[in-house]
Amino acid sequence: MKYVYFFGEGKAEGSREMKDLLGGKGANLAEMSSIGVPVPPGFTVSTAVCELYYDNKGRIPKEVAAEVEKNLSRLEKIMGKTLGQADDPLLVSVRSGAAVSMPGMMDTVLNLGMNDKAVKGLAEKSGNPRFAWDAYRRFINMFGNVVMGVSHEHFEAALDKIKKKRKVELDTELDSDDLEGVVDAYKDVVKKHTKQNFPQDPKKQLWATIDAVFGSWNNERAVSYRRINDIKGVKGTAVTVQSMVFGNLGDDSGTGVCFSRDPSTGKKVFYGEYLMNAQGEDVVAGIRTPMALKTLEKRAPKIYKQLVDVKDRLEDHYKDMQDMEFTIQQGSLYILQTRNGKRTGAAAIKIAVDLVNEKKIDRETAIGHVTPEQLDQVFHPQIDPKAKKSNKAVAKGLNASPGAASGIVVFTAEEATQWKKDGKQVLLVRRETSPEDIEGMHAAEGILTSTGGMTSHAAVVARGMGKPCVAGCKDVVISGKKLTVNGNTVKQGEAMTIDGTTGEVFIGELELTNPKISGELNTFLSWTDDVRLKAERPGLTQKGLNIRTNADTPGDAKRAREFGAEGIGLCRTEHMFFEEDKIFNFRQMIVAENKEAREKALKKILPLQKKDFKGIFKAMDGLPVTIRLLDPPLHEFVPRENREIKQLAEAVGLSPGKVKAKIESLHELNPMLGHRGCRLGITFPEVYDMQVEAIMTAACEVAKTGVKVIPEIMIPLVGTRQELAVLRENAVRVAEAVLEKKKQKVEYLVGTMIEIPRAALTADEVAEVADFFSFGTNDLTQMAFGYSRDDVGTFVPEYIEQGILEEDPFAVLDQSGVGQLVQIGVEKGRSAKPDLKVGICGEHGGEPKSVDFCYRVGMNYVSCSPFRVPIARLAAAQAVIRNR
Amino acid sequence: MKYVYFFGEGKAEGSREMKDLLGGKGANLAEMSSIGVPVPPGFTVSTAVCELYYDNKGRIPKEVAAEVEKNLSRLEKIMGKTLGQADDPLLVSVRSGAAVSMPGMMDTVLNLGMNDKAVKGLAEKSGNPRFAWDAYRRFINMFGNVVMGVSHEHFEAALDKIKKKRKVELDTELDSDDLEGVVDAYKDVVKKHTKQNFPQDPKKQLWATIDAVFGSWNNERAVSYRRINDIKGVKGTAVTVQSMVFGNLGDDSGTGVCFSRDPSTGKKVFYGEYLMNAQGEDVVAGIRTPMALKTLEKRAPKIYKQLVDVKDRLEDHYKDMQDMEFTIQQGSLYILQTRNGKRTGAAAIKIAVDLVNEKKIDRETAIGHVTPEQLDQVFHPQIDPKAKKSNKAVAKGLNASPGAASGIVVFTAEEATQWKKDGKQVLLVRRETSPEDIEGMHAAEGILTSTGGMTSHAAVVARGMGKPCVAGCKDVVISGKKLTVNGNTVKQGEAMTIDGTTGEVFIGELELTNPKISGELNTFLSWTDDVRLKAERPGLTQKGLNIRTNADTPGDAKRAREFGAEGIGLCRTEHMFFEEDKIFNFRQMIVAENKEAREKALKKILPLQKKDFKGIFKAMDGLPVTIRLLDPPLHEFVPRENREIKQLAEAVGLSPGKVKAKIESLHELNPMLGHRGCRLGITFPEVYDMQVEAIMTAACEVAKTGVKVIPEIMIPLVGTRQELAVLRENAVRVAEAVLEKKKQKVEYLVGTMIEIPRAALTADEVAEVADFFSFGTNDLTQMAFGYSRDDVGTFVPEYIEQGILEEDPFAVLDQSGVGQLVQIGVEKGRSAKPDLKVGICGEHGGEPKSVDFCYRVGMNYVSCSPFRVPIARLAAAQAVIRNR
Repeated sequence: MKYVYFFGEGKAEGSREMKDLLGGKGANLAEMSSIGVPVPPGFTVSTAVCELYYDNKGRIPKEVAAEVEKNLSRLEKIMGKTLGQADDPLLVSVRSGAAVSMPGMMDTVLNLGMNDKAVKGLAEKSGNPRFAWDAYRRFINMFGNVVMGVSHEHFEAALDKIKKKRKVELDTELDSDDLEGVVDAYKDVVKKHTKQNFPQDPKKQLWATIDAVFGSWNNERAVSYRRINDIKGVKGTAVTVQSMVFGNLGDDSGTGVCFSRDPSTGKKVFYGEYLMNAQGEDVVAGIRTPMALKTLEKRAPKIYKQLVDVKDRLEDHYKDMQDMEFTIQQGSLYILQTRNGKRTGAAAIKIAVDLVNEKKIDRETAIGHVTPEQLDQVFHPQIDPKAKKSNKAVAKGLNASPGAASGIVVFTAEEATQWKKDGKQVLLVRRETSPEDIEGMHAAEGILTSTGGMTSHAAVVARGMGKPCVAGCKDVVISGKKLTVNGNTVKQGEAMTIDGTTGEVFIGELELTNPKISGELNTFLSWTDDVRLKAERPGLTQKGLNIRTNADTPGDAKRAREFGAEGIGLCRTEHMFFEEDKIFNFRQMIVAENKEAREKALKKILPLQKKDFKGIFKAMDGLPVTIRLLDPPLHEFVPRENREIKQLAEAVGLSPGKVKAKIESLHELNPMLGHRGCRLGITFPEVYDMQVEAIMTAACEVAKTGVKVIPEIMIPLVGTRQELAVLRENAVRVAEAVLEKKKQKVEYLVGTMIEIPRAALTADEVAEVADFFSFGTNDLTQMAFGYSRDDVGTFVPEYIEQGILEEDPFAVLDQSGVGQLVQIGVEKGRSAKPDLKVGICGEHGGEPKSVDFCYRVGMNYVSCSPFRVPIARLAAAQAVIRNR
Repeated sequence: MKYVYFFGEGKAEGSREMKDLLGGKGANLAEMSSIGVPVPPGFTVSTAVCELYYDNKGRIPKEVAAEVEKNLSRLEKIMGKTLGQADDPLLVSVRSGAAVSMPGMMDTVLNLGMNDKAVKGLAEKSGNPRFAWDAYRRFINMFGNVVMGVSHEHFEAALDKIKKKRKVELDTELDSDDLEGVVDAYKDVVKKHTKQNFPQDPKKQLWATIDAVFGSWNNERAVSYRRINDIKGVKGTAVTVQSMVFGNLGDDSGTGVCFSRDPSTGKKVFYGEYLMNAQGEDVVAGIRTPMALKTLEKRAPKIYKQLVDVKDRLEDHYKDMQDMEFTIQQGSLYILQTRNGKRTGAAAIKIAVDLVNEKKIDRETAIGHVTPEQLDQVFHPQIDPKAKKSNKAVAKGLNASPGAASGIVVFTAEEATQWKKDGKQVLLVRRETSPEDIEGMHAAEGILTSTGGMTSHAAVVARGMGKPCVAGCKDVVISGKKLTVNGNTVKQGEAMTIDGTTGEVFIGELELTNPKISGELNTFLSWTDDVRLKAERPGLTQKGLNIRTNADTPGDAKRAREFGAEGIGLCRTEHMFFEEDKIFNFRQMIVAENKEAREKALKKILPLQKKDFKGIFKAMDGLPVTIRLLDPPLHEFVPRENREIKQLAEAVGLSPGKVKAKIESLHELNPMLGHRGCRLGITFPEVYDMQVEAIMTAACEVAKTGVKVIPEIMIPLVGTRQELAVLRENAVRVAEAVLEKKKQKVEYLVGTMIEIPRAALTADEVAEVADFFSFGTNDLTQMAFGYSRDDVGTFVPEYIEQGILEEDPFAVLDQSGVGQLVQIGVEKGRSAKPDLKVGICGEHGGEPKSVDFCYRVGMNYVSCSPFRVPIARLAAAQAVIRNR
């Protein structure tokens, strides 16, 4: 068994495939070394040793120790100097590194090998005593803290004391002698807190550090980090011992970071920053302003050429844009790290497409190079990164609909509409929105709510409109015409900015950057479609996974089609009722005293609904349109104000008292579990009859003009087979009567939402009377968890914070719980009807992990809001590749 | 293949086992005939013919017709007269009868064989022309209606015309000549409505009638009856043709009904009523008062002796109390029907026990002779049957808690308490009750609500108290200090009566009968326990199924124990908080601004809760007590009135405005799906900590006095393993600290309710951190169906009426849907922890069909309200026998 892996001099015993054994860092250094990139040599003690360490009660086995000694000798031989050598000491770094990155969680010690003798030798050899003493004092601080357990603050206090005495502010203002004093003071700190002298033997230093790094794998911080981030099955950490290089050894030394392509635009230009005579920390600290990389070409043409060469080699090797750290030590270039570079959404797409065109990767690899989040960015404005740097968020809510928006604050939908008409950009701030606010939401640049979750009304509607929204921001307290947020007050008319991508809320108007849709986008998306639509689906006759959209208006339908939607998966009819001309008639229907009066009111709505449907059918020529019949409880539609009630009473010829009583009788304690969905269809069949008549009449009239119409009538909230059986019979009766009357033939389906747990559990029975299933995972999540989507703000954020929930189940489908119901529903449904068409129309239909799940359980399509359609196309293609 | 089965002269081709083929009626007649009971002879055309009839497009196959003719000849031979014989005609009845009783659904024709000639022959032969003409006109009416389709009202109209002309009120006042006129008039009615003469050929009459009876199997009424009553798999109806006997042929004729034992007390006395010179209809019509059976002994000793003999023979044969119909025709006794007699609960128990003592049946058979509903009767007052006869219910609601109650109406809990103090019996009428009404509910005789379902607050609490309750009676409209119900107005202070066993509501004070608990009850229940507790349970180490109770107070616990409870399955702690001394402190806790203030308020509650728990532990010495930690959302506890808010604000040192704001912030749109149950335990851990401390301290203190304490701490509303893991850890920490402090050892368990669908679906994970599961089927039903138990009144009654739901799922566990979740939960739970203790504490725990289900899925116990404990004991014993 081999425990230690050497790298250096253009060779390495490990490789990048060995992440599990060498950790990400060790594997990467080995890989770079073996392809001839100049990496400071060193060796990695494998993660297997970490396991042995714990099995062996925290001791490193002898055979491992021997192997470490052998590799250390090899390193010393290559470097031509030994650890602790008095005239020219070898200094090393000791770093942890697991297979999965756990930034800041585990420990690192630099400059190991330093002691009272070595510091003097280094001072002489380098001709830079200040550098030598600085390195020593940093080492004592790190080792004292990581290995000996002395709190960092004690070293800080000692340093402050000396700086005060010397009357300086910055560490850089201390000279060599001062730093020598700091070393003495630090040694005193160690002595005082550990009752031990600072160890002078470099070997002892090394073993104690390796021991401490292994120990840090199970420290409290690391354990809870793994728990919170759900990191399981990782064996332990590796330890990499590597010779130190220094960028602060004079004007022929330096340090920098560079990218093989521009990470913000994706353009193929070499891009980066550097500082001469500096260490990495100096770049981070921001005391000196780094220089643009291109200036290095003039200053050190040989080094620059070498760097360009390394960059090309690394990009060719890793086949992606690289983010590299380098150090120049007295005229020699060293690469300390390379990784696939972080990039903006626009850059990700351009780079992926360019790499394919350059024949470096194939299309499927390119698809894997762009995350759905990156793709999403290119459709929405973002806060300018500079503005974000200089402004602090005052609160954070749920990132309910992506993109950023600035505007002056208004608190009602009416004001939003009015101020917008007056030429102002407004931000609508509400406790929660309701269907009556739709027009105001349209007028606003963005929406901010203080309650409600990821599928609250505001969130769902904002996503549908493609408008930024931060929801459930409970620190925002609205009272009258002002709000307070963590001690700040914002009055109506004052500006705020929200970032719906992150959930952040800012006071004032921040600079935004507008989305720029590059020419590469369509190319990229067409590649995803290729993969997505060609996938073989076991057990299904259909190839691939279709992407539909949730759209309620012809405008939304058209836009979604432009985004690539292949049908409408959910057209909610109730939104239509809130339009001014319809709601008054609908209210008359609600308060009607008997069936006749109800039918009379419905008759007035029929032509208006028909018009809506015609527009949608036209927009979706040749594609299926799933129309859901009325879903919300009737009390959502009733008037609240006395003036309106009086007006309504007059229209229906009842006393206002009677109308008021009727309205009050509709009140429910838990409306989400109340008289809504198909329950209305059963108790007021004339409402559904009117809707089916409107759908089928519209279908006939549009079909006559040569448009291909594919209507799918969807009954919501079914919990028992019998409900659907009765309502299906009604719908078919009405539909056939229309076709008879119109003397036309239009194919149509009648299916149901599966959103009640009982419907999923008895899906075999329900399927007998359904042409299709569409999983309504919003309600299914509400009922499977027993969480009201409107009320989760009070505890779900805390659940996520405490790690009780990994994610908001309204944003990401809970595969282990709710997912079981979906799977049971699909399997039982298909057991009764093998060719049952199955889709999803809950908000999860546009969430990448959930799309993957829907693909795996065998759905025919997912449906999501128009702006999510491209995301879903990408996510589906990635699902196809992932699950091959 | 045999199609027709003869019976008569002490023999029969059929038997009682042949219900499927001969229908209930035909099988019964065959059985009686074969054991020598004097039954008028006849034959039954089997249900197989009904199937043939439909397969054959509504025609009776030839071979069947031949067999019918053969049997008719045999009947004529025995009777010594033929159908239509002019001097002495054979008359027959033709009746339908399926394997399952469908009362009033299918058709019957009596006196078949009558025509213009036969009527004269019969008049002469019987010496009773009035009888003959009466028989004829009845035949025309029935045949005309059933076979020829003439509406009954037309015959009524013709009869009324003649009665008016003769200036009489009753049919009996018409003489022979009048009836001859009626026959003519009836024949005209037939002619007018069918354009046909009334058929004179008796064979034609017979075939047309058989045809009509088979046809009636699929008439609309019968089909919808079978759909509503979920009667499936019954092949069709049989047709029984039987010779007529008449009780109205003179003073040596008569008719009556009798019971082999007293159906209201169960005493072994021969009991019945009869009328001489009368037909069965005369007894029913109530014009003449029937005589007590014992007077027959004097009047006709030979007949009486014969009847006693038959009664004994039938009871011995059927081994149960018999309800018989007999007719005496000119000195000869005929038995027309026998069946197991309906009886009161008290009678059912006495008869069952007596039959065992008489060695007629064994104990297990006796257990099957008493229905749970009958057993329930003996614990509650009932409306006096006579009072019920003479009063009509004005409305019907849900039969939410059994028993009857009378009292003067009050509309608030405060008034109920006050009026009760003033010595009045009150009936509390509310829209819905809330926890604040508990005291008033205690004071009331019964509770009537206008909304809410079978598990609404009123229903659950009333059952717990054993108080009659009619819930969700939507016809009752409360406004101020009066109510209206279907046109009647009842003011505060006026009397009403409710029947919680049936859901009926009456105006005025009806006479009630108080329950009389017989000596046989305990004997009977001890037999059920024997069966119940000895049952082998496959896969379980435990034998039998335990019955626990849901009890929140020492008083309830004691009572339940007297009823046979073997532990507490659910002790709700929140009810305790509503007591005056606790709620004020609890409110201080709720509005507290921080953890310290909350803990301060909780400290004041701790000793009070401890006291409650001590009382319960003492009452349940030696038995397990499952205590559920706080479940309802906090807003249920907050004050509504300004006075109270002000008082609370003063106590906590906040402004009333701030307290009001805090109270408002607790408002939820769907509280049932909101911040309650273990979600409170996660966000306010100090509340659960206090409760666990109170439980364990109480346990220690009571255990010290020699009482055996078995506490089981139950965490409600768990949806994920992690919730329970965190709360279990907290509970164990607090419990161990108490035991440490008290230096005592008390065994305790920490388990969870399974009431969230997700918890059932992931029960394998949840079980890892649970000592027991208790299925909360109320919430599980709410969430599996998506029905709010408080709001179902708006549509569930209509669902049941339309046959969409067979039963209210809050009353009877929905085995096919919710039951799947229960089964998945039990199976997955035990897959992770094979000896996991599993019970049910939802309201279904006392419902017989649901108890059977719980037994089948392998539960260790069911838990129900104290008054349901005996019912559950019986239901469990029956389940054991049924599932053997």
